[in-house]
Amino acid sequence: MSSEDEKFMRLALELAKRGEGWVNPNPMVGAVIVKDGKIIGVGWHKRFGDKHAEVNAIEDAKRKGYDVRGATMYVTLEPCSHWGKQPPCADRIIREGFKRVVVAMVDPNPLVSGRGIEKMRKAGIEVEVGLLEEEARKLNEIFIKYVTSKMPFVSIKLALTLDGFIATETGSSQWITGEKARQKVQELRRGHMAIMVGAGTVLADDPRLNCRLENCPEKVKVILDRSGRVANAIREGRKFRLFEDGRVIFFTERPELFEGIAEAYPITEPKEILKKLAELGIDSVLIEGGRIACQFLAFADKFYLFYGPKLFGNGIKPFECLKVQEASEAPVVRIESIERLGESFLVTAYPGGGDVQRNR
Amino acid sequence: MSSEDEKFMRLALELAKRGEGWVNPNPMVGAVIVKDGKIIGVGWHKRFGDKHAEVNAIEDAKRKGYDVRGATMYVTLEPCSHWGKQPPCADRIIREGFKRVVVAMVDPNPLVSGRGIEKMRKAGIEVEVGLLEEEARKLNEIFIKYVTSKMPFVSIKLALTLDGFIATETGSSQWITGEKARQKVQELRRGHMAIMVGAGTVLADDPRLNCRLENCPEKVKVILDRSGRVANAIREGRKFRLFEDGRVIFFTERPELFEGIAEAYPITEPKEILKKLAELGIDSVLIEGGRIACQFLAFADKFYLFYGPKLFGNGIKPFECLKVQEASEAPVVRIESIERLGESFLVTAYPGGGDVQRNR
Repeated sequence: MSSEDEKFMRLALELAKRGEGWVNPNPMVGAVIVKDGKIIGVGWHKRFGDKHAEVNAIEDAKRKGYDVRGATMYVTLEPCSHWGKQPPCADRIIREGFKRVVVAMVDPNPLVSGRGIEKMRKAGIEVEVGLLEEEARKLNEIFIKYVTSKMPFVSIKLALTLDGFIATETGSSQWITGEKARQKVQELRRGHMAIMVGAGTVLADDPRLNCRLENCPEKVKVILDRSGRVANAIREGRKFRLFEDGRVIFFTERPELFEGIAEAYPITEPKEILKKLAELGIDSVLIEGGRIACQFLAFADKFYLFYGPKLFGNGIKPFECLKVQEASEAPVVRIESIERLGESFLVTAYPGGGDVQRNR
Repeated sequence: MSSEDEKFMRLALELAKRGEGWVNPNPMVGAVIVKDGKIIGVGWHKRFGDKHAEVNAIEDAKRKGYDVRGATMYVTLEPCSHWGKQPPCADRIIREGFKRVVVAMVDPNPLVSGRGIEKMRKAGIEVEVGLLEEEARKLNEIFIKYVTSKMPFVSIKLALTLDGFIATETGSSQWITGEKARQKVQELRRGHMAIMVGAGTVLADDPRLNCRLENCPEKVKVILDRSGRVANAIREGRKFRLFEDGRVIFFTERPELFEGIAEAYPITEPKEILKKLAELGIDSVLIEGGRIACQFLAFADKFYLFYGPKLFGNGIKPFECLKVQEASEAPVVRIESIERLGESFLVTAYPGGGDVQRNR
């Protein structure tokens, strides 16, 4: 594959990203149609349930008066071969007479993986697979996790001082990081279907837990409220801003307290909570409550650690449930990137990996 | 001043850096001589007590057969006007017939500041001051602190987990960071005259506390040993590697225990310790003992925080002596840079500053 191919696939990946937050729990997909070296159509999956990227690209080309017969399609994910909410894209590509299809990655769903490619190849289309696959997999890490494990992608977001505290001993934490870091949190929220905090955060801060970026969909707000403290507060007349928009789901030992107030499930065990969220069609959850993060540490798929330029000396530690005795036995993460955000910075990391040397 | 001027001054700054570790407590200085747009001589201050950069550059030009009369000298620090270990450079520059001198920064010593420049100007030399001043001040931040305050420049170096621990609760800390981070520590040691740790570190790890880079001078090792535990261990027959090279200085309540063993002073108060080190001609100290760092927090001029990709959950916190109740009252640092070092990263910061927003 040529550098031209790569250029077009990179554009397809950029287009795909425009669906972020809107397509979940579907994947983000982008498509670019090229004929005689010229881009004649582009498309992306815009919204859950809507037309797929391939069809949008074909329609874009036709609207502009182009004939896609004999053209090449660059698409970030294997075209589907089955009827879902939309007819199979592989069939459409065959019918439209494409000569060549370049695919970044096969469908991660083991039940359908490779079938779209096979179908197109059988119809005589030249199909190439794997161009910018790593980028495509990264783009859809949430979808891949969800479709292969039937569990949501779990991200833990924390705001820490340089010495690792999420709040002072008295619970004070506003603000550890600065404006740019908080803006970045809004971007993270865009990519996740649900935001999770504990009841303590709701009672103390009355957060909206929404996404305040332009063109950002409503979020599902998940509240862990074992004893039903938020329900009691509501019964006593308190109002909470998280009810202003989007679905609100409580996990509690006291679901009866939430009757007539909010959706609530009698589940408190972290793994079961995640399973339930997956059942509800939620592919991703951003855990923003520092005090509940440790319970979900074993299920974390990604860490977003924001560090602000402060020192507390003492205070609330995010992973206090961990009991590490020997440095060599500590959980290790793999740092993906470090981004400066004004006076603060963001460390993005995945669990496991790394090659920390354990010997002198 | 032109971009040509800047190019030559940048070279002078690079040359100056070659003296790092060797010239303390003198400043690093570099000089470049240019005639008709061509570099005819370069020099730098190589070692404490040796010839100054300006003289080395003049001799370099002459050795190559050039006549420096009418040339321009670029020098990173104001040429000296007084007799110290070497004759005054300003006089030499005048005598050699330089036409123009470009100086990055004036001498920070308030007693002599500006005199060299004045002398040269009176002699009819065109003197320009302030080119790349910021870089020059950064290069000699240690010298500036020492000469203006008569206190050593204090750097605190820590190796932290991502959640802010310098060791587990059992004291285990090997290794939080990786090989590249530990290599970087060697570079930090090069720039500081002294390395300071507590007796606990000496007893537990038997560190050498030397600089293992090529061409790196011996370090002064400063050990805080209030009760004389190291002396007692030596009396019991233990050997410690820190005595293998360089001067070793103990601060203790029990100086008598160190008689015949090592230099020891009956001082235990952090400020008094630093004053004593300055008196001893030590311009800079790198505090490597995490457990003693908090005592010197109020005197810190710079932080070198190495983060390794691990989580301990619990353990030993570096700044436990701090008692911050409100986030808005926490000590703030100004992050200068963030550098990836393999799987770890280094945050370099200065105390104070920043513009952490304290309101919503």
